[in-house]
Amino acid sequence: MLFRTWKKITAVVALALTVSCVSHSSLAQNPNLVITQADVVAMRIGVQKEGRFQNAYNDLRATVDRQLVQEINVPVPKDGGGGYTHEVHKKNYQYMYNAGLIFQISEDQKYADSVKDMLLEYAELYPTLDVHPKRKVNSQNPGKFFWQSLNEAMWMVYTIQAYDLVKAAIPAADRATIENDLLKPVAEFLSVGQPSTFNKVHNHGTWATAGVGMAGYVLDEPEWVEMALYDLEKSGKGGFLRQLDELFSPQGYYNEGPYYQRFALLPFITFAKAIENNEPERKIFEYRDGIVYKAIDTTIQLSYAGLFYPINDAIKSKGTDTIELVHGVTIAYGLSGERGLLSIAEEQNQVILSGDGLLVAEALDQGLQLPYAYRSVAFGDGNDGKQGALVIMRSDLDGEQSVLFKPASQGLGHGHFDKLTWQFYDLGEEIVSDYGAARFLNVEAKFGGRYLPENNSYAKHTVAHNTVVVDEISHFDNNVKVGNANWPTLAYFETSDEGSVSRASIATAYPGVNLDRTLALVNLPELGRTVVVDVFAVTGQSKQQYDLPLHYLGQLIDTSFPLQAKANNLQMLGTDNGYQHLWLKGQATPDSGLAKVTWLNKNGRFYTQTSLVDGSETFLFTQLGATDPNFNLRNEQGFIRRVKSNEHTFVSVLEPHGEYNPSKEYTLDAVSTVTSLTYTEQDNVVFVELSIAGNDYLIALNSSAQNAKEVTFKNSKYTLSGRLSVFSQK
Amino acid sequence: MLFRTWKKITAVVALALTVSCVSHSSLAQNPNLVITQADVVAMRIGVQKEGRFQNAYNDLRATVDRQLVQEINVPVPKDGGGGYTHEVHKKNYQYMYNAGLIFQISEDQKYADSVKDMLLEYAELYPTLDVHPKRKVNSQNPGKFFWQSLNEAMWMVYTIQAYDLVKAAIPAADRATIENDLLKPVAEFLSVGQPSTFNKVHNHGTWATAGVGMAGYVLDEPEWVEMALYDLEKSGKGGFLRQLDELFSPQGYYNEGPYYQRFALLPFITFAKAIENNEPERKIFEYRDGIVYKAIDTTIQLSYAGLFYPINDAIKSKGTDTIELVHGVTIAYGLSGERGLLSIAEEQNQVILSGDGLLVAEALDQGLQLPYAYRSVAFGDGNDGKQGALVIMRSDLDGEQSVLFKPASQGLGHGHFDKLTWQFYDLGEEIVSDYGAARFLNVEAKFGGRYLPENNSYAKHTVAHNTVVVDEISHFDNNVKVGNANWPTLAYFETSDEGSVSRASIATAYPGVNLDRTLALVNLPELGRTVVVDVFAVTGQSKQQYDLPLHYLGQLIDTSFPLQAKANNLQMLGTDNGYQHLWLKGQATPDSGLAKVTWLNKNGRFYTQTSLVDGSETFLFTQLGATDPNFNLRNEQGFIRRVKSNEHTFVSVLEPHGEYNPSKEYTLDAVSTVTSLTYTEQDNVVFVELSIAGNDYLIALNSSAQNAKEVTFKNSKYTLSGRLSVFSQK
Repeated sequence: MLFRTWKKITAVVALALTVSCVSHSSLAQNPNLVITQADVVAMRIGVQKEGRFQNAYNDLRATVDRQLVQEINVPVPKDGGGGYTHEVHKKNYQYMYNAGLIFQISEDQKYADSVKDMLLEYAELYPTLDVHPKRKVNSQNPGKFFWQSLNEAMWMVYTIQAYDLVKAAIPAADRATIENDLLKPVAEFLSVGQPSTFNKVHNHGTWATAGVGMAGYVLDEPEWVEMALYDLEKSGKGGFLRQLDELFSPQGYYNEGPYYQRFALLPFITFAKAIENNEPERKIFEYRDGIVYKAIDTTIQLSYAGLFYPINDAIKSKGTDTIELVHGVTIAYGLSGERGLLSIAEEQNQVILSGDGLLVAEALDQGLQLPYAYRSVAFGDGNDGKQGALVIMRSDLDGEQSVLFKPASQGLGHGHFDKLTWQFYDLGEEIVSDYGAARFLNVEAKFGGRYLPENNSYAKHTVAHNTVVVDEISHFDNNVKVGNANWPTLAYFETSDEGSVSRASIATAYPGVNLDRTLALVNLPELGRTVVVDVFAVTGQSKQQYDLPLHYLGQLIDTSFPLQAKANNLQMLGTDNGYQHLWLKGQATPDSGLAKVTWLNKNGRFYTQTSLVDGSETFLFTQLGATDPNFNLRNEQGFIRRVKSNEHTFVSVLEPHGEYNPSKEYTLDAVSTVTSLTYTEQDNVVFVELSIAGNDYLIALNSSAQNAKEVTFKNSKYTLSGRLSVFSQK
Repeated sequence: MLFRTWKKITAVVALALTVSCVSHSSLAQNPNLVITQADVVAMRIGVQKEGRFQNAYNDLRATVDRQLVQEINVPVPKDGGGGYTHEVHKKNYQYMYNAGLIFQISEDQKYADSVKDMLLEYAELYPTLDVHPKRKVNSQNPGKFFWQSLNEAMWMVYTIQAYDLVKAAIPAADRATIENDLLKPVAEFLSVGQPSTFNKVHNHGTWATAGVGMAGYVLDEPEWVEMALYDLEKSGKGGFLRQLDELFSPQGYYNEGPYYQRFALLPFITFAKAIENNEPERKIFEYRDGIVYKAIDTTIQLSYAGLFYPINDAIKSKGTDTIELVHGVTIAYGLSGERGLLSIAEEQNQVILSGDGLLVAEALDQGLQLPYAYRSVAFGDGNDGKQGALVIMRSDLDGEQSVLFKPASQGLGHGHFDKLTWQFYDLGEEIVSDYGAARFLNVEAKFGGRYLPENNSYAKHTVAHNTVVVDEISHFDNNVKVGNANWPTLAYFETSDEGSVSRASIATAYPGVNLDRTLALVNLPELGRTVVVDVFAVTGQSKQQYDLPLHYLGQLIDTSFPLQAKANNLQMLGTDNGYQHLWLKGQATPDSGLAKVTWLNKNGRFYTQTSLVDGSETFLFTQLGATDPNFNLRNEQGFIRRVKSNEHTFVSVLEPHGEYNPSKEYTLDAVSTVTSLTYTEQDNVVFVELSIAGNDYLIALNSSAQNAKEVTFKNSKYTLSGRLSVFSQK
């Protein structure tokens, strides 16, 4: 796979060199960061042809033209995030970058002049500034234009590229002013001025090293590049390469989850591309077995129906069309020529004006896109890939189904206390859901647009997820530090034609309690259907309360047992750890046997969770929204299986079925067809007997290390060829 | 408008005649109901060409081929609606119709034989049948194949057309058996056998008259046609023409609302087309000034973003793509050649195999579609158009906004007690919403798929709508008969470039209380925005409790006043008339001035309702779902403005604003820009002063009959040129 990738990269580089040979030798060396002189030559030809690239260029030029005629506005910094001066300075660096691009392609001097004029205003302002008035008290990382240096570093990443694009068209005296009064001091402020941020192995550090490192190339300060790569002392303990070592797993998974992975991606790919163009001998895209490319590709894999799986602090509408991933896909295609990436680019429907962007646009114009291959995969977590895993299972046997299983590590401050939780997706919709982050981004009335108080009091807590809560206390007793230091163990993951299966456990979420979950997305080709088998074993040392919530999206349709609903009065379910946000809407203690809960999702399909119960489990039906004085929470539904025991195994099957089509006035198979479910653990194998729609299945989940294993179950012999075996008895 | 329509009809008829001249004279007279011999000739040519018609034909032929090889199944009737034999007999008549069609186009005898064989089985079964075992006790209208004669009539409408399509290809002896043992007895059973249904001026009667009347044409029983048109006694008190007189308003509005209008449409258009083809001298499509065409067109007008406005008992996912309206649009295009209809047909994405269907398919293949012209219009209700009105207002100044205002009459048993309610739509979504019907169609677990008990206990009640409730009692004290006998008076409706405005009142919803509402959808071109002005005057004779609910879809973002939320315990708001289904989530009594409630809809836009309050109104924030033991209700949000007074005027402005785009990480104008709102009634004119986004507007709503009126307001003179005048003061 990787070999193929590199072969294609070689081809692309060869092409670039060819183009390079015909470039105007009269131009100076700039630009040469993400965009090279060779790219510029190709883009100037590219915009002559009708197609996506020309359209993107015309659109951006029109946008820049509208801004060009406005007066330059470089206000004295005053406001915090989201405030007026904050937004103006953000707009300014984007404008300078765009105008620089249009200058290079159009060769119209007015655009270069406009960037120059704005840079000169910045150069006049900067020496007069102290740190920002709205910085946090005792902040280690204030900015000057912005309240925090993260934004200052982003300013630098854009501005240094803008300068690189226009540098050759600016008089020498102006260049001196801009470099000496603005760019160099900002680079110094972001590096030696803030060692704690610059040296930090964290995405804030990546923005700083990217900005300063690129400034090193443009301003001919090779020492800055060294510092950016290896930290201020060039020790290798920090810096860009250490960030590449530490922040991603070997498969390119970023510890905080996809929502933050896509945010962190941009400085990585930008600086990497600039390094490649300036110092190809560093072979940055080969670094750590191609980690930059893997990080981009993994971000795509971590999506369903175009949206990122919303684990940890994630806003649910973020997906593969975010601008960071548009850049990512563009650069990844430039590297690999993988035609599957083009279908993602097509969905993104945005063309980047760069050399790689031109390749993408022309390939799409030619219809070269192929379907992107979404896979079932376990992404190892942590820099060694051994700190748990994030598991994605997929099947397209009946719809487009996916299980996310999360025996991943905590994921730092944005992580949730949700070890071994799961989510389920089908026909483009969330079925078994995760709340994501409690936040209305940038909506001032909602706690200033920041994370809401309910993010800590509900969304991060265990009960907000689909995993076991012991005694109404969250995992690690809600302590991030303890969470970061402990993670689940992935016993196994395997995917085959029979489906996908994974098992994982953790003994450190609660003292003296082991949580062990096996989840399988099982194909039943005889029925053309797929089910999820869930076996969650909880082993404690004394009688405790074990709660297993399931948060579903949709309308409750039916339960197979009588349900006592609270008719005229609702109470909150508990007092702390998220329970204070749940209304108790009804409860039931089903008799021994099968307990079914059926709901209808907005995708028009029914879902039945069939639980195998022994009469000890109480089902508590909940609605979110208690203790919510500002109506900050979505009023979503769930049910909690509760048992008081030393140890307990929660066994269930989730079954998608039927169709509700009120538009065409038909309803099909609204009733679950699971008629029998048993569970036996024997000789390191979990046997689940499932009768569904008249078919009898034996599903064997094999925890033994042996790849082929002979077993006897109920007097019949079976050969298990892998982790998951499905025997159809009919 | 109508004149233009008829001119085009003439052109189409002329074309049909031309085609007719080249038809095989060797064919018998059949078919000649909806589809004529001339149509068949044209269709046979049509399927030779690549395009939509050929595709539709190939699809249907493949479907029919799959069924053709299966054994014929004509079971003894046993099950009620939705049951096995019920569904088989429905499938059978659809199959016979489709196979008949494929026979005519393909000229392959096997399809005719298949229809014949099935008809012969029916002819054998029918004489053995008594009325259906699952009929309702003491039913006036049982069927034999089906539990109710409505389905039996539908069977006839399809089957007689199927027979008409294959008649000429069936041996004479079989024809005699089918006609004498099956079709004639069924026609007699549906007519003289059930006078109360056949003569009823109701859509059930329309199905019966359509089936029997078409049988009259095919079986050469002209008396049946007369009976179908004028009732069994040919008195004109019942029958198809009387149905056309009574069931629609002069503009083609059907009293029960669009959900039932689209259902009722099919027998009207089918029989009308058969009459036109057999007896053009009856000029059925000119009857009542073209009422059939108007009924079709009005059904389209009663939709927003492809879905019908969900007034009365309506399932919300029904829209313009329902099969009844596909037939309607097809026939309407055949009549009028209106190219706007083609854009509806394109959205429907279904092609009918008929002469008109061919015209539609070929026109779409040629790209002749033009945008359909959705209008702002008041549809008079009742057969005289004077029993209130259903008012639709639209504006596309800023999105695609629509107000539905409902001073309509009750609409019989499926009507809701919601006089003067309103709904608001924007950017394709419901904003101020109506619950619609409480029903999960055909979902057995949900009360057998019938209307839920909550349809009566909540959805029909006044508090479920956006109109005034007095003393927690619904309009007409929830009595349908009283409701049917009383309706609001439409004072006026007018639409112009300034917007649309309507006023209506009703004094009979409550004894001694007059309800008077003026609603305007006002364009503010200076701002490129639209607002809704709502003035609701309630005049009673003693101190009573007036509640004005507003049901919104979305998440509460902010209130301009402190809101006391119920944190840990919810109580139901009342005990009866729907109040028992509402949880009280919080309340507030805002100070005199402007009281704002802002929410965010899933379309990404913010909406602020700004109410002008005098300190006497309490705002009660509610969530639906109390007294709901089976989780049948959707848990939607609302707030109720409550005042205790003799008389009170509720004044408010609804303001769409801004955008929430967490995907692209920006939020614009999340805060209402209404800074001042006043209300003055003077000399039969309502003056509303509105300051919004820095602009000052005077909005005058003129109830005087004069078209041009000079008024003085606050020492300035204004000329009002119509019902709605908007003066920008800046």
